[in-house]
Amino acid sequence: MSLLANDPKRKTWLDIPDNSDFPIQNIPFGVFLTRDDIITIGTRIGDYAIDLGALHQLGYFEGIPLTDDIFLQDSLNDFIADGRKTWRSVRNRIAEIFDKNNSKLKDNKDHRQTVLFKLDEIEMQMPVQVGDYTDFYSSKEHATNVGKMFRDPDNALLPNWLHIPVGYHGRSSSIIPSGIPVHRPQGQKMPKGADAPIFGPSRLVDFELEMAFVTTAANPLGQPIPIDEAENNIFGMVIFNDWSARDIQKWEYVPLGPFLAKSFASSISPWIVTLDALEPFRTESPKPIKPLLPYLNSKDHKKSFDINLEVGITPKNSTETVVSRTNFKYMYWNMSQQLAHHTVNGCPVNSGDMMASGTISGPTPDSYGSMLELSWRGEKPLKLKDGAERKFIEDHDTVKMRGYCQNHEVRIGFGEVSTKLLPVFKDK
Amino acid sequence: MSLLANDPKRKTWLDIPDNSDFPIQNIPFGVFLTRDDIITIGTRIGDYAIDLGALHQLGYFEGIPLTDDIFLQDSLNDFIADGRKTWRSVRNRIAEIFDKNNSKLKDNKDHRQTVLFKLDEIEMQMPVQVGDYTDFYSSKEHATNVGKMFRDPDNALLPNWLHIPVGYHGRSSSIIPSGIPVHRPQGQKMPKGADAPIFGPSRLVDFELEMAFVTTAANPLGQPIPIDEAENNIFGMVIFNDWSARDIQKWEYVPLGPFLAKSFASSISPWIVTLDALEPFRTESPKPIKPLLPYLNSKDHKKSFDINLEVGITPKNSTETVVSRTNFKYMYWNMSQQLAHHTVNGCPVNSGDMMASGTISGPTPDSYGSMLELSWRGEKPLKLKDGAERKFIEDHDTVKMRGYCQNHEVRIGFGEVSTKLLPVFKDK
Repeated sequence: MSLLANDPKRKTWLDIPDNSDFPIQNIPFGVFLTRDDIITIGTRIGDYAIDLGALHQLGYFEGIPLTDDIFLQDSLNDFIADGRKTWRSVRNRIAEIFDKNNSKLKDNKDHRQTVLFKLDEIEMQMPVQVGDYTDFYSSKEHATNVGKMFRDPDNALLPNWLHIPVGYHGRSSSIIPSGIPVHRPQGQKMPKGADAPIFGPSRLVDFELEMAFVTTAANPLGQPIPIDEAENNIFGMVIFNDWSARDIQKWEYVPLGPFLAKSFASSISPWIVTLDALEPFRTESPKPIKPLLPYLNSKDHKKSFDINLEVGITPKNSTETVVSRTNFKYMYWNMSQQLAHHTVNGCPVNSGDMMASGTISGPTPDSYGSMLELSWRGEKPLKLKDGAERKFIEDHDTVKMRGYCQNHEVRIGFGEVSTKLLPVFKDK
Repeated sequence: MSLLANDPKRKTWLDIPDNSDFPIQNIPFGVFLTRDDIITIGTRIGDYAIDLGALHQLGYFEGIPLTDDIFLQDSLNDFIADGRKTWRSVRNRIAEIFDKNNSKLKDNKDHRQTVLFKLDEIEMQMPVQVGDYTDFYSSKEHATNVGKMFRDPDNALLPNWLHIPVGYHGRSSSIIPSGIPVHRPQGQKMPKGADAPIFGPSRLVDFELEMAFVTTAANPLGQPIPIDEAENNIFGMVIFNDWSARDIQKWEYVPLGPFLAKSFASSISPWIVTLDALEPFRTESPKPIKPLLPYLNSKDHKKSFDINLEVGITPKNSTETVVSRTNFKYMYWNMSQQLAHHTVNGCPVNSGDMMASGTISGPTPDSYGSMLELSWRGEKPLKLKDGAERKFIEDHDTVKMRGYCQNHEVRIGFGEVSTKLLPVFKDK
């Protein structure tokens, strides 16, 4: 199945803003509530959301084997489980439908009014029902920074780090789409020099800039996925803000890992950009420093992607300051390695599972992916445009993360994940 | 809503073996495949499985507000989400239907043939679709044993342990019901004195004897569950075998916790015994050694349960040796504390979520809940009845865990979780 939809020369009859993250070459997938309060699966071109459920009912996917209700669902899980051939057929067909030279939908006003929505008419939902969520820890720069701050500066990377794409299980129930605010969490913290922990609001709420990938149903219990087959099981990617409460984390995480410091919320960008759409932006991961065990060594070395990322903080009634600019390509471990490792013990992966990269920190201090690193655990507060300072995130701050790929022909973006931090929840 | 179904004096017209785990006072819930290959929700009395979907269609639940298809599902999630009042009504009604003095079903041969199954006619399935699975670490004896073996024998308990019901997120996709065999996992291990890890089969496959509880939809994002309301959100319990690969665990678990060492499989007993059925077996948890923060301090102190537990190992073509006898009441942290802690940061809990206790080790060496502790990391191999020795679990061994409560009036049991360990999976 060819990647017809990627043709950089294709133009659409829709009106697309310059520099849009969502040209006709993107065609991401998401779930939204329409102006009529119907939940449907859709795609986005420019600033239009397109109701794929309606398009399907109107016969535009004729010839592609799809069940009648495949898009009339509140999650993409079943569509994703249909497999890569189906995703590609649908994406190619959407490209044809909106191609400048195709007048079928363009000239049918009734159909157009049924399937096209302005963004302010819809409400984006979680694109998948996440079965299991895993968070990796795959940036060498991030792991090194954390090791320097909290462990031994001379041996910042732990002994297993260069051999294993270290990861851990996270909480899927608190993954939310962009736009939903998050309350500052409370929990146990151990003050310096105290005898006993205290309970109260986290004072060190942080973001973590990550990307996550979404899988299809991949393997039965007991059967690993070989690294060179891993990408067949990856549907696409989103931007992932792994909210973290550093004071809670510090007290709770030994020996079984982060728990409540993370599980209060993780926010994602709502449109899943397919791995197919990212194809032009393949790049190599950094060269391995230690020899890789064979199950982590892929034949093809271009298993990473060149994705520009940035984080902005907007205080209440103020303007945004971009506090980090980095790139997904800095990640030491790539998605194929992560998925091969995750399943090498026979762990089954299902449609809609989500695996996040871990904080994406680049080589320079302005490319770090968390306030912990950017402010060096609060020792170097960041100056915001409005004159305020930030060591961590304050109540009513909005954190926005954006990501896009760009070459001389096309820009493929993720849009944004935007989340406001609210004060501690008070029971009425 | 009263706990009518718990009446210890009630007898049933069904033929029940002496000392059954499933007298008419139990009435657990499960999901099974019938002889006609229909999936249904059911209960068990003695050695009969009872098709609740069929009972409902025949009108036996008249007067209880239930949707028509509530029992004709492949998981209990929706039924559990209906809430405690519904669980109690249904359990009370089942007790009435099978009461010795009620002839309605007893005297209707057609109905009896439709709803009653012998155990060998059915195949038990996962009772719930587990959204998120959390594993706690709540036995002081277990945490102390592990601390002695791998950290500092004089400071075996870590500083946070007496303040926090320590827990971590686990993998829900690999939770399987009793009867499904598990392949020995492969993974990275770091041999003593080596420079680099090797890849291969785990040589230290272990069980962990745990109990798990299943929740209903409990709280929205951001809103904690107060400790005294926690039990309202607990549907019931199962026995939980948290399979573990000790050599993989040792190399991978710092700093983010166990991952592939656990996610290859966890096995559960298939009948969920309701918290209501366990009511007569309430008991106090051990007295707190350190003062509890208020959110972990419940008004009522009888928040634990007196559940006898045992583990047996049966080598291929041999007989079983019971290697551990212990009790759930030894757990330092109880389920109410675990659930209050888990949600104190606002983490949402959904219907079908599963939370396991952590390894249940008692105070004496024969009451430890893992081979790691029973054989003291292999230094004291266990002698089996057939003369063989075991440090850990060997290929073709079957591990069975059983649990029951018993007083002078009634026995409420969980049945068993039985799992065979197969050799490493080989691709054909």
